[in-house]
Amino acid sequence: MEYYSKTITKLIAELGHLPGIGQKMAQRIAFHLLHQDEQSVRDFADAIVTARTSARFCKECCTLTDEDICPICASDKRDHHTIMVVEDTRDLVAYEKTGQYNGVYHVLQGAISPMQGIGPGDIRLKELMVRLQGDVDEVIIATNSTLEGEATALFISKMLKDTGIRVTRIASGVPVGGDLEYVDEVTLLRALENRKEL
Amino acid sequence: MEYYSKTITKLIAELGHLPGIGQKMAQRIAFHLLHQDEQSVRDFADAIVTARTSARFCKECCTLTDEDICPICASDKRDHHTIMVVEDTRDLVAYEKTGQYNGVYHVLQGAISPMQGIGPGDIRLKELMVRLQGDVDEVIIATNSTLEGEATALFISKMLKDTGIRVTRIASGVPVGGDLEYVDEVTLLRALENRKEL
Repeated sequence: MEYYSKTITKLIAELGHLPGIGQKMAQRIAFHLLHQDEQSVRDFADAIVTARTSARFCKECCTLTDEDICPICASDKRDHHTIMVVEDTRDLVAYEKTGQYNGVYHVLQGAISPMQGIGPGDIRLKELMVRLQGDVDEVIIATNSTLEGEATALFISKMLKDTGIRVTRIASGVPVGGDLEYVDEVTLLRALENRKEL
Repeated sequence: MEYYSKTITKLIAELGHLPGIGQKMAQRIAFHLLHQDEQSVRDFADAIVTARTSARFCKECCTLTDEDICPICASDKRDHHTIMVVEDTRDLVAYEKTGQYNGVYHVLQGAISPMQGIGPGDIRLKELMVRLQGDVDEVIIATNSTLEGEATALFISKMLKDTGIRVTRIASGVPVGGDLEYVDEVTLLRALENRKEL
């Protein structure tokens, strides 16, 4: 049995399909929207449709953007000889927020995952190879420190073995400001292995 | 500085205004939507606008619905002599889910809160008084067990004092199935005060 009217039930169901949104949360958001004035709800719906319809992958680095070439790839202030490879546009943004990285990116839009049936052909590796025909000094692999991210990093490093391009991987270890007791064991061991002379 | 393209930034900002959605969550939902096919994103946006534009308050009980009279008020299977007063449509649904309450409801669409400047005139009390002109045996006050809910319950009970209508308040106490050690002190004391002979 449905407890809400048809249109409200549909809204709650749609909201419940969003990642990380459970039934209770979907109800809460639905009623928030139902109590907003009509114009702001229309604006919200417009923002969703506009973002989706104008979304495209940058022809250079494959990040999600609303232009053919994203601002980073279009900028002549960036070092186009250094390419950081990330899985996702959000990972790109995470490094952009540091404000310290001046190279460009390549967004794979995923990672190799045999478990999920995602092979090298399913992520943006071909596009990376095309870019490496150009004048590239270093490829920094910044895929996630997960099984899939590590597999992808390994695959790329093998793929670039004979190109003469420097291939590096971002360090893994204890997060800065992190309390050791809350860090998982694998990270603790990794940090120990990668210890440096002081 | 904005790290995402304009339309994506706007979408993340709009999502971030939803209750309980932080910045990270807004990003996650935005990218989920950007990776969906265009038609399902349009359907989602439609569901939002349709729910909002068709939303109205039931002319009888003031619940949020998409009809003039909600199905509960329109039903002749319900006992229209018993009215349960709740703050919110979601509270109505909570009691409907028990499947055991056969009366009708009155949804105040809020609670009296002097702190937030919400007085008796700002919630649907006038509409309740109009309904009580009819043939009503009992008003069950099921406002929340919060400061505002209790103040609202007190106000209603005073308001109905000389009407001869039976006014009751749902019990408060330890939740069924709840572990005593996780129950707050006020509830524990309330449960003690309201103890019953076995």
